Amino acid sequence: MPKVEFWYEFASTYSYPAALRIEALAAARGVEVEWKPFLLGPLFASAGWRDSPFNIYPVKGRYMWRDMKRICALLGLPFARPSVFPQNSLLAARVATALSNAARAKFSQRVYSANFAEGRLIAERQVLAVLITETGLNAEAALAAAETPENKSKLKGAVERAIELGLPGAPALVTADEEVFWGNDRLEQGLDWAIGKR
Amino acid sequence: MPKVEFWYEFASTYSYPAALRIEALAAARGVEVEWKPFLLGPLFASAGWRDSPFNIYPVKGRYMWRDMKRICALLGLPFARPSVFPQNSLLAARVATALSNAARAKFSQRVYSANFAEGRLIAERQVLAVLITETGLNAEAALAAAETPENKSKLKGAVERAIELGLPGAPALVTADEEVFWGNDRLEQGLDWAIGKR
Repeated sequence: MPKVEFWYEFASTYSYPAALRIEALAAARGVEVEWKPFLLGPLFASAGWRDSPFNIYPVKGRYMWRDMKRICALLGLPFARPSVFPQNSLLAARVATALSNAARAKFSQRVYSANFAEGRLIAERQVLAVLITETGLNAEAALAAAETPENKSKLKGAVERAIELGLPGAPALVTADEEVFWGNDRLEQGLDWAIGKR
Repeated sequence: MPKVEFWYEFASTYSYPAALRIEALAAARGVEVEWKPFLLGPLFASAGWRDSPFNIYPVKGRYMWRDMKRICALLGLPFARPSVFPQNSLLAARVATALSNAARAKFSQRVYSANFAEGRLIAERQVLAVLITETGLNAEAALAAAETPENKSKLKGAVERAIELGLPGAPALVTADEEVFWGNDRLEQGLDWAIGKR
Protein backbone atom coordinates (compact mmCIF):
# COMPACT_ATOMS: atom_id res chain seq x y z
CA MET A 1 0.00 0.00 0.00
CA PRO A 2 1.52 3.37 -1.00
CA LYS A 3 2.33 5.69 1.88
CA VAL A 4 2.56 9.43 2.32
CA GLU A 5 3.79 11.46 5.24
CA PHE A 6 1.45 14.26 6.30
CA TRP A 7 3.54 16.98 7.95
CA TYR A 8 1.63 19.48 10.05
CA GLU A 9 1.96 22.14 12.75
CA PHE A 10 -0.87 22.74 15.22
CA ALA A 11 -0.64 26.53 14.91
CA SER A 12 -0.87 26.42 11.11
CA THR A 13 -4.18 27.66 9.76
CA TYR A 14 -4.16 25.79 6.44
CA SER A 15 -3.23 22.58 8.26
CA TYR A 16 -6.71 22.61 9.81
CA PRO A 17 -8.75 21.86 6.65
CA ALA A 18 -5.92 19.59 5.45
CA ALA A 19 -5.96 17.53 8.66
CA LEU A 20 -9.71 17.14 8.44
CA ARG A 21 -9.61 16.16 4.73
CA ILE A 22 -6.54 13.99 4.35
CA GLU A 23 -7.83 10.63 5.60
CA ALA A 24 -10.84 10.47 3.27
CA LEU A 25 -8.78 11.62 0.27
CA ALA A 26 -6.08 9.04 1.04
CA ALA A 27 -8.57 6.22 1.62
CA ALA A 28 -10.23 6.95 -1.74
CA ARG A 29 -6.84 6.30 -3.40
CA GLY A 30 -5.75 3.40 -1.21
CA VAL A 31 -2.94 5.42 0.34
CA GLU A 32 -1.78 5.12 3.94
CA VAL A 33 -1.06 8.34 5.85
CA GLU A 34 1.70 8.70 8.42
CA TRP A 35 0.96 11.72 10.60
CA LYS A 36 4.10 13.80 11.20
CA PRO A 37 3.71 16.64 13.70
CA PHE A 38 6.50 19.20 13.67
CA LEU A 39 7.16 22.84 14.61
CA LEU A 40 7.37 25.71 12.16
CA GLY A 41 9.17 28.02 14.62
CA PRO A 42 12.71 26.75 13.88
CA LEU A 43 12.05 26.84 10.10
CA PHE A 44 10.72 30.37 10.30
CA ALA A 45 13.61 31.45 12.53
CA SER A 46 16.09 30.48 9.80
CA ALA A 47 14.16 32.82 7.44
CA GLY A 48 14.52 35.57 10.08
CA TRP A 49 10.91 35.42 11.28
CA ARG A 50 10.19 35.40 15.01
CA ASP A 51 6.42 35.37 14.50
CA SER A 52 4.02 33.95 11.94
CA PRO A 53 4.62 35.56 8.52
CA PHE A 54 0.86 36.20 8.55
CA ASN A 55 1.44 38.56 11.47
CA ILE A 56 4.67 40.03 10.09
CA TYR A 57 3.08 40.76 6.69
CA PRO A 58 -0.41 42.14 7.43
CA VAL A 59 -1.53 42.10 3.78
CA LYS A 60 -0.88 38.34 3.63
CA GLY A 61 -2.48 37.90 7.03
CA ARG A 62 -5.70 39.70 6.10
CA TYR A 63 -5.93 37.71 2.90
CA MET A 64 -5.28 34.40 4.69
CA TRP A 65 -8.08 34.90 7.25
CA ARG A 66 -10.57 35.74 4.48
CA ASP A 67 -9.35 32.78 2.41
CA MET A 68 -9.63 30.40 5.41
CA LYS A 69 -13.19 31.52 6.04
CA ARG A 70 -14.16 30.88 2.40
CA ILE A 71 -12.32 27.54 2.25
CA CYS A 72 -13.93 26.24 5.43
CA ALA A 73 -17.36 27.40 4.19
CA LEU A 74 -16.86 25.50 0.92
CA LEU A 75 -15.83 22.37 2.85
CA GLY A 76 -18.63 22.73 5.39
CA LEU A 77 -16.09 22.99 8.22
CA PRO A 78 -16.83 25.24 11.19
CA PHE A 79 -14.34 28.08 11.51
CA ALA A 80 -13.75 30.82 14.05
CA ARG A 81 -10.67 33.01 13.95
CA PRO A 82 -8.72 32.29 17.16
CA SER A 83 -8.15 35.18 19.57
CA VAL A 84 -4.51 34.11 19.92
CA PHE A 85 -2.50 33.44 16.76
CA PRO A 86 -0.24 31.61 16.48
CA GLN A 87 -0.77 29.53 19.60
CA ASN A 88 2.22 27.81 21.17
CA SER A 89 1.98 24.28 19.86
CA LEU A 90 4.96 22.65 21.57
CA LEU A 91 3.13 20.53 24.13
CA ALA A 92 0.41 19.51 21.66
CA ALA A 93 3.10 18.43 19.18
CA ARG A 94 4.85 16.43 21.90
CA VAL A 95 1.62 14.68 22.83
CA ALA A 96 0.92 13.84 19.19
CA THR A 97 4.46 12.55 18.72
CA ALA A 98 4.07 10.12 21.62
CA LEU A 99 0.85 8.54 20.34
CA SER A 100 0.36 5.66 17.90
CA ASN A 101 -0.33 6.81 14.34
CA ALA A 102 -4.08 6.12 14.54
CA ALA A 103 -4.51 7.87 17.90
CA ARG A 104 -2.30 10.72 16.65
CA ALA A 105 -4.62 11.30 13.71
CA LYS A 106 -7.69 11.47 15.93
CA PHE A 107 -6.04 13.64 18.58
CA SER A 108 -4.61 15.99 15.95
CA GLN A 109 -7.98 16.53 14.27
CA ARG A 110 -9.42 17.22 17.73
CA VAL A 111 -6.73 19.85 18.42
CA TYR A 112 -7.31 21.57 15.07
CA SER A 113 -11.04 21.89 15.67
CA ALA A 114 -10.34 23.21 19.16
CA ASN A 115 -7.92 25.82 17.79
CA PHE A 116 -9.72 26.95 14.64
CA ALA A 117 -13.40 26.31 15.33
CA GLU A 118 -13.90 26.35 19.10
CA GLY A 119 -11.68 29.18 20.30
CA ARG A 120 -9.85 26.97 22.80
CA LEU A 121 -6.37 27.67 24.09
CA ILE A 122 -4.44 24.67 22.85
CA ALA A 123 -1.18 25.86 24.38
CA GLU A 124 -2.54 25.12 27.86
CA ARG A 125 -1.92 21.83 29.59
CA GLN A 126 -5.42 21.57 31.10
CA VAL A 127 -7.03 22.23 27.73
CA LEU A 128 -4.87 19.54 26.12
CA ALA A 129 -5.78 17.13 28.93
CA VAL A 130 -9.47 17.63 28.08
CA LEU A 131 -8.79 17.20 24.34
CA ILE A 132 -6.85 13.98 24.99
CA THR A 133 -9.75 12.66 27.08
CA GLU A 134 -12.24 13.68 24.38
CA THR A 135 -10.15 11.65 21.91
CA GLY A 136 -10.77 8.63 24.13
CA LEU A 137 -7.25 8.46 25.57
CA ASN A 138 -5.80 8.68 29.06
CA ALA A 139 -4.71 12.27 29.58
CA GLU A 140 -2.25 11.63 32.39
CA ALA A 141 -0.49 8.82 30.54
CA ALA A 142 -0.37 10.76 27.26
CA LEU A 143 1.08 13.88 28.90
CA ALA A 144 3.68 11.81 30.77
CA ALA A 145 4.71 10.05 27.55
CA ALA A 146 4.87 13.44 25.81
CA GLU A 147 7.46 14.75 28.21
CA THR A 148 10.01 11.96 28.31
CA PRO A 149 13.44 12.97 27.02
CA GLU A 150 13.14 10.33 24.26
CA ASN A 151 9.89 11.81 23.01
CA LYS A 152 11.21 15.37 23.13
CA SER A 153 14.19 14.22 21.04
CA LYS A 154 11.88 12.49 18.61
CA LEU A 155 10.03 15.76 17.93
CA LYS A 156 13.34 17.61 17.59
CA GLY A 157 14.41 14.99 15.08
CA ALA A 158 11.19 15.56 13.12
CA VAL A 159 11.93 19.29 12.92
CA GLU A 160 15.44 18.55 11.66
CA ARG A 161 14.00 16.17 9.08
CA ALA A 162 11.51 18.83 7.95
CA ILE A 163 14.39 21.25 7.35
CA GLU A 164 16.34 18.54 5.50
CA LEU A 165 13.31 17.84 3.28
CA GLY A 166 13.06 21.55 2.47
CA LEU A 167 9.48 21.94 3.67
CA PRO A 168 8.52 25.58 3.01
CA GLY A 169 5.68 25.46 5.53
CA ALA A 170 2.74 23.41 6.72
CA PRO A 171 0.85 21.36 5.85
CA ALA A 172 2.97 19.31 3.48
CA LEU A 173 2.75 15.85 1.97
CA VAL A 174 5.96 13.93 1.39
CA THR A 175 5.84 10.87 -0.83
CA ALA A 176 8.07 7.77 -0.63
CA ASP A 177 10.32 9.27 -3.34
CA GLU A 178 10.60 12.49 -1.28
CA GLU A 179 8.47 14.72 -3.45
CA VAL A 180 7.13 17.59 -1.35
CA PHE A 181 3.62 18.99 -1.86
CA TRP A 182 3.00 22.12 0.16
CA GLY A 183 -0.39 23.35 1.27
CA ASN A 184 -3.96 22.26 1.71
CA ASP A 185 -4.26 22.95 -2.04
CA ARG A 186 -1.79 20.18 -2.91
CA LEU A 187 -3.28 17.20 -1.02
CA GLU A 188 -4.97 15.69 -4.04
CA GLN A 189 -1.92 16.19 -6.25
CA GLY A 190 0.45 14.66 -3.67
CA LEU A 191 -1.79 11.65 -3.12
CA ASP A 192 -2.14 11.16 -6.88
CA TRP A 193 1.65 11.26 -7.16
CA ALA A 194 1.87 8.55 -4.47
CA ILE A 195 -0.23 6.20 -6.62
CA GLY A 196 1.70 6.97 -9.79
CA LYS A 197 -0.74 9.50 -11.31
CA ARG A 198 1.42 12.45 -12.23
CA MET B 1 -22.42 38.87 -18.15
CA PRO B 2 -20.48 38.57 -14.87
CA LYS B 3 -16.99 40.04 -14.94
CA VAL B 4 -13.76 39.34 -13.12
CA GLU B 5 -10.51 41.24 -13.11
CA PHE B 6 -7.44 39.11 -13.69
CA TRP B 7 -4.47 40.84 -12.01
CA TYR B 8 -1.05 39.68 -13.13
CA GLU B 9 2.64 40.57 -13.22
CA PHE B 10 4.85 39.42 -16.10
CA ALA B 11 7.68 38.33 -13.79
CA SER B 12 5.37 36.20 -11.64
CA THR B 13 5.86 32.48 -12.13
CA TYR B 14 2.41 31.30 -11.05
CA SER B 15 0.82 33.95 -13.29
CA TYR B 16 2.09 31.96 -16.29
CA PRO B 17 -0.19 28.91 -15.96
CA ALA B 18 -2.98 31.20 -14.73
CA ALA B 19 -2.73 33.46 -17.80
CA LEU B 20 -2.83 30.45 -20.10
CA ARG B 21 -5.80 28.87 -18.27
CA ILE B 22 -8.05 31.79 -17.36
CA GLU B 23 -9.90 32.38 -20.65
CA ALA B 24 -11.12 28.80 -21.08
CA LEU B 25 -12.17 28.55 -17.42
CA ALA B 26 -14.03 31.86 -17.64
CA ALA B 27 -15.72 31.01 -20.96
CA ALA B 28 -16.97 27.72 -19.49
CA ARG B 29 -18.77 29.75 -16.80
CA GLY B 30 -19.91 32.61 -19.02
CA VAL B 31 -17.62 35.09 -17.25
CA GLU B 32 -15.85 37.97 -18.94
CA VAL B 33 -12.21 38.62 -18.01
CA GLU B 34 -10.66 42.04 -17.74
CA TRP B 35 -6.87 41.72 -17.94
CA LYS B 36 -5.16 43.93 -15.36
CA PRO B 37 -1.36 44.08 -15.63
CA PHE B 38 0.40 45.55 -12.62
CA LEU B 39 3.81 45.51 -10.92
CA LEU B 40 4.65 43.55 -7.78
CA GLY B 41 7.77 45.60 -7.00
CA PRO B 42 5.99 48.41 -5.13
CA LEU B 43 3.88 45.90 -3.16
CA PHE B 44 6.96 43.89 -2.22
CA ALA B 45 8.86 47.06 -1.30
CA SER B 46 6.24 47.89 1.32
CA ALA B 47 6.91 44.44 2.85
CA GLY B 48 10.61 45.29 2.90
CA TRP B 49 11.55 43.07 -0.07
CA ARG B 50 13.80 44.45 -2.79
CA ASP B 51 13.84 41.17 -4.72
CA SER B 52 11.40 38.32 -5.31
CA PRO B 53 10.61 36.55 -2.02
CA PHE B 54 11.51 33.36 -3.93
CA ASN B 55 15.07 34.67 -4.14
CA ILE B 56 15.12 36.11 -0.61
CA TYR B 57 13.84 32.84 0.91
CA PRO B 58 15.70 30.04 -0.91
CA VAL B 59 13.61 27.25 0.65
CA LYS B 60 10.46 28.78 -0.83
CA GLY B 61 12.27 29.41 -4.11
CA ARG B 62 13.47 25.83 -4.49
CA TYR B 63 9.99 24.55 -3.72
CA MET B 64 8.35 26.98 -6.15
CA TRP B 65 10.53 25.92 -9.10
CA ARG B 66 9.81 22.26 -8.44
CA ASP B 67 6.09 23.00 -8.01
CA MET B 68 5.98 25.03 -11.24
CA LYS B 69 7.58 22.17 -13.16
CA ARG B 70 5.00 19.70 -11.84
CA ILE B 71 2.07 22.07 -12.41
CA CYS B 72 3.06 22.82 -15.99
CA ALA B 73 3.59 19.09 -16.65
CA LEU B 74 0.07 18.34 -15.35
CA LEU B 75 -1.38 21.10 -17.55
CA GLY B 76 0.65 20.08 -20.58
CA LEU B 77 2.32 23.51 -20.68
CA PRO B 78 5.95 23.81 -21.78
CA PHE B 79 8.17 25.14 -19.01
CA ALA B 80 11.83 26.13 -18.77
CA ARG B 81 13.24 27.90 -15.75
CA PRO B 82 14.38 31.35 -16.94
CA SER B 83 18.06 32.22 -16.56
CA VAL B 84 17.08 35.63 -15.16
CA PHE B 85 14.49 35.78 -12.39
CA PRO B 86 12.64 37.99 -11.86
CA GLN B 87 12.89 39.81 -15.17
CA ASN B 88 12.16 43.53 -15.25
CA SER B 89 8.57 43.69 -16.43
CA LEU B 90 8.00 47.44 -16.57
CA LEU B 91 7.99 47.93 -20.34
CA ALA B 92 5.95 44.76 -20.97
CA ALA B 93 3.37 45.95 -18.43
CA ARG B 94 3.23 49.35 -20.09
CA VAL B 95 2.69 47.76 -23.51
CA ALA B 96 -0.08 45.54 -22.12
CA THR B 97 -1.72 48.52 -20.41
CA ALA B 98 -1.91 50.43 -23.69
CA LEU B 99 -3.64 47.64 -25.63
CA SER B 100 -7.35 46.83 -25.92
CA ASN B 101 -8.47 44.07 -23.58
CA ALA B 102 -8.55 41.39 -26.29
CA ALA B 103 -5.12 42.27 -27.67
CA ARG B 104 -3.79 42.56 -24.10
CA ALA B 105 -4.85 38.99 -23.36
CA LYS B 106 -3.10 37.64 -26.47
CA PHE B 107 0.05 39.72 -25.98
CA SER B 108 0.22 38.79 -22.28
CA GLN B 109 -0.02 35.07 -22.98
CA ARG B 110 2.73 35.50 -25.58
CA VAL B 111 4.98 37.26 -23.04
CA TYR B 112 4.42 34.53 -20.43
CA SER B 113 5.38 31.77 -22.84
CA ALA B 114 8.45 33.77 -23.87
CA ASN B 115 9.50 34.22 -20.22
CA PHE B 116 8.71 30.80 -18.77
CA ALA B 117 8.95 28.42 -21.72
CA GLU B 118 11.26 29.96 -24.30
CA GLY B 119 14.03 31.54 -22.24
CA ARG B 120 13.57 34.95 -23.83
CA LEU B 121 14.58 38.22 -22.19
CA ILE B 122 11.24 39.99 -21.86
CA ALA B 123 12.82 43.07 -20.25
CA GLU B 124 14.41 43.99 -23.57
CA ARG B 125 12.74 46.38 -25.98
CA GLN B 126 13.75 44.44 -29.11
CA VAL B 127 12.44 41.19 -27.67
CA LEU B 128 9.13 42.86 -26.81
CA ALA B 129 8.94 44.30 -30.32
CA VAL B 130 9.19 40.77 -31.71
CA LEU B 131 6.56 39.48 -29.26
CA ILE B 132 4.18 42.32 -30.19
CA THR B 133 4.65 41.47 -33.87
CA GLU B 134 4.09 37.77 -33.14
CA THR B 135 0.80 38.75 -31.48
CA GLY B 136 -0.23 40.30 -34.78
CA LEU B 137 0.14 43.92 -33.69
CA ASN B 138 2.26 46.85 -34.85
CA ALA B 139 5.35 46.95 -32.65
CA GLU B 140 6.27 50.56 -33.23
CA ALA B 141 2.76 51.83 -32.53
CA ALA B 142 2.35 49.65 -29.44
CA LEU B 143 5.69 50.74 -27.95
CA ALA B 144 4.89 54.41 -28.63
CA ALA B 145 1.48 54.05 -26.97
CA ALA B 146 3.15 52.29 -24.05
CA GLU B 147 5.37 55.23 -23.29
CA THR B 148 2.96 58.12 -23.30
CA PRO B 149 2.69 59.91 -19.95
CA GLU B 150 -1.03 59.01 -19.81
CA ASN B 151 -0.28 55.31 -20.20
CA LYS B 152 2.51 55.40 -17.63
CA SER B 153 0.07 57.03 -15.19
CA LYS B 154 -2.53 54.41 -15.97
CA LEU B 155 -0.14 51.61 -14.94
CA LYS B 156 0.83 53.54 -11.80
CA GLY B 157 -2.87 53.85 -11.01
CA ALA B 158 -3.26 50.08 -11.41
CA VAL B 159 -0.48 49.47 -8.90
CA GLU B 160 -2.14 51.85 -6.43
CA ARG B 161 -5.43 50.04 -6.96
CA ALA B 162 -3.74 46.67 -6.35
CA ILE B 163 -2.44 47.97 -3.02
CA GLU B 164 -5.88 49.36 -2.14
CA LEU B 165 -7.48 45.98 -2.94
CA GLY B 166 -4.98 44.26 -0.64
CA LEU B 167 -3.60 41.91 -3.29
CA PRO B 168 -1.00 39.73 -1.56
CA GLY B 169 0.67 38.81 -4.84
CA ALA B 170 0.02 37.67 -8.39
CA PRO B 171 -1.96 36.30 -10.05
CA ALA B 172 -5.21 37.37 -8.41
CA LEU B 173 -8.84 37.42 -9.42
CA VAL B 174 -11.03 40.26 -8.18
CA THR B 175 -14.79 39.90 -8.48
CA ALA B 176 -17.35 42.69 -8.91
CA ASP B 177 -17.98 42.65 -5.14
CA GLU B 178 -14.20 43.01 -4.55
CA GLU B 179 -13.51 39.51 -3.31
CA VAL B 180 -9.83 38.68 -3.89
CA PHE B 181 -8.69 35.19 -4.91
CA TRP B 182 -4.93 34.83 -4.89
CA GLY B 183 -2.98 32.33 -6.93
CA ASN B 184 -3.23 30.03 -9.89
CA ASP B 185 -4.88 27.63 -7.39
CA ARG B 186 -7.85 29.97 -6.86
CA LEU B 187 -8.96 30.65 -10.44
CA GLU B 188 -11.83 28.15 -10.39
CA GLN B 189 -13.01 29.31 -6.97
CA GLY B 190 -12.92 32.98 -7.94
CA LEU B 191 -14.80 32.37 -11.19
CA ASP B 192 -17.39 30.27 -9.34
CA TRP B 193 -17.81 33.13 -6.89
CA ALA B 194 -18.41 35.52 -9.81
CA ILE B 195 -21.37 33.40 -10.97
CA GLY B 196 -22.82 33.07 -7.48
CA LYS B 197 -21.48 29.59 -6.66
CA ARG B 198 -19.86 29.98 -3.25
